[in-house]
Amino acid sequence: MSQVKRAIGIDIGGTKTAVAAVDATGHVHASTRFETSSKRGFSTCLTEMNEHIQRVLKEAKWNVEELSGIGIGCAGPVNPARGTIHNPFTLPGWDNADIVTPLKQAFRVPARLENDADAAIVGESEFGAGASANPLVLVTLGTGIGGAVLMNGTIYRGVNGDHPEFGHILVEHAGPECYCGTRGCWESIASGAAIGQAGGSFGFADSRAVFAAAPKDPNAAEIIQAAVDATAKATWTLLHTFLPQRIILGGGIGEQHFELFARPMRQQISRTTQIPKGATAIFKAQLGNAAGVVGAASLIFQSSNVSENP
Amino acid sequence: MSQVKRAIGIDIGGTKTAVAAVDATGHVHASTRFETSSKRGFSTCLTEMNEHIQRVLKEAKWNVEELSGIGIGCAGPVNPARGTIHNPFTLPGWDNADIVTPLKQAFRVPARLENDADAAIVGESEFGAGASANPLVLVTLGTGIGGAVLMNGTIYRGVNGDHPEFGHILVEHAGPECYCGTRGCWESIASGAAIGQAGGSFGFADSRAVFAAAPKDPNAAEIIQAAVDATAKATWTLLHTFLPQRIILGGGIGEQHFELFARPMRQQISRTTQIPKGATAIFKAQLGNAAGVVGAASLIFQSSNVSENP
Repeated sequence: MSQVKRAIGIDIGGTKTAVAAVDATGHVHASTRFETSSKRGFSTCLTEMNEHIQRVLKEAKWNVEELSGIGIGCAGPVNPARGTIHNPFTLPGWDNADIVTPLKQAFRVPARLENDADAAIVGESEFGAGASANPLVLVTLGTGIGGAVLMNGTIYRGVNGDHPEFGHILVEHAGPECYCGTRGCWESIASGAAIGQAGGSFGFADSRAVFAAAPKDPNAAEIIQAAVDATAKATWTLLHTFLPQRIILGGGIGEQHFELFARPMRQQISRTTQIPKGATAIFKAQLGNAAGVVGAASLIFQSSNVSENP
Repeated sequence: MSQVKRAIGIDIGGTKTAVAAVDATGHVHASTRFETSSKRGFSTCLTEMNEHIQRVLKEAKWNVEELSGIGIGCAGPVNPARGTIHNPFTLPGWDNADIVTPLKQAFRVPARLENDADAAIVGESEFGAGASANPLVLVTLGTGIGGAVLMNGTIYRGVNGDHPEFGHILVEHAGPECYCGTRGCWESIASGAAIGQAGGSFGFADSRAVFAAAPKDPNAAEIIQAAVDATAKATWTLLHTFLPQRIILGGGIGEQHFELFARPMRQQISRTTQIPKGATAIFKAQLGNAAGVVGAASLIFQSSNVSENP
């Protein structure tokens, strides 16, 4: 009985959690979505998560015995080696919660936890826009700006196995203040939150309204241009630090306005004398709405996942 | 007959080449230094290099049979996988020269070529300021600005195995033009060459003269302050891209004026909310003048060197 490998992918965000039955070709057989509501405490949420896994398995007509494992992508910080979540701002009530051990025990399969951006880059590498590019950089341009780096298929990890938050690359000395501790980082100018905040002064409701108005309204146009310029500058720095073969641009804003941001990113590549012509390319993220759960499941399928401990 | 492992370390710069007999504790038993003069062509230089290796072996009273290998650190770009040198600006006459194969054949030992910054970080990791820090970043602040990154003992490599030149991180949009293709990169403001050039307008002969005058001359002070500020900004970006446990500051200027640059680097660390307190530290490079040859030899002693091919 030969069959494609099967995994459960869990994508945990501050607001919603998604659970899906995903096979080793990246195909989603069944999925569900529910409120995370982490404030209820971890054990309540874990019980609910187990029920949703059972439900998805049933809908996909998969037996637990057929599972290769459970992959979890979670809004960071997380500790992949210990399988624990440490995000009191986005996931209050779960601090220091070990999500890997109880899932392993309940379903008797391997389980692996990663920061959601790390899960997404593994997903894009296995099933999306990242195939065989090395090193690979993923940029998620949405409400915030984040990303991840894969070198030889291994997730780049910082001190203590922590995930680097390169949305806080410095781009404009005189820019807005950011919670990261400085002014003028990339996220403080180009994120959805930053665009929305800058637009607020001119009566725009949110970043979507600023993007919509930009073709006609000079204030909106200026805000968007600043976001594009900041992204170009941050790209210069990504090129000269990680020297990637490919930068995948994802996230809500990055995907919806891909060409607007990709064009100046490509101009940066063409300007540098430090990278051979044609060595680095900009691609659009391909996994779309399923990126979270497919990325999470890909942690189980990834060939190099055994050596992933920091 | 138990003995400490032995290697030859070769450090090739645009002007000088150094050859040394180095043991696996990092101790230099004998060394020599000669003009690189790459314009004479590679085969002439190779013959000379072989003679210097023989001479150093004789002086150290080592037999060729006792060697574990020959490590070569070379002013980049180099191709470590192919063992070839590709630096027509600094090493004209050697372009595409394979240095590994003839040395392997002549001495019947393993040989390994790396970019000099990559050799230096392996040296600091094995014998200097980098011990057990992970990830480790080396910054070489000298005539130019360069560096290297080690993650889990593996050299961080960019596309095609190339070495990222993070001296070109963007720090000041309105800064001086750089050969890298942009304005206001770190190197264009804080390198010895940049300090010397800025000082030239005020009659200073070179960067050394600017540093010497800075305590009394406001123009010199301003140039040095700009270099320090640029280094602080670049440090912010290094922290949020590579998230290192330790940054080693080396290079002529970095070592001579260590505290001047380390202080604002440490201030950046203390300002960020994205790295746990105390997780990242700034250290001074420890290998000093011997960094080149000891770094080169360390490529042979490094435990993980078998898996180093890009």
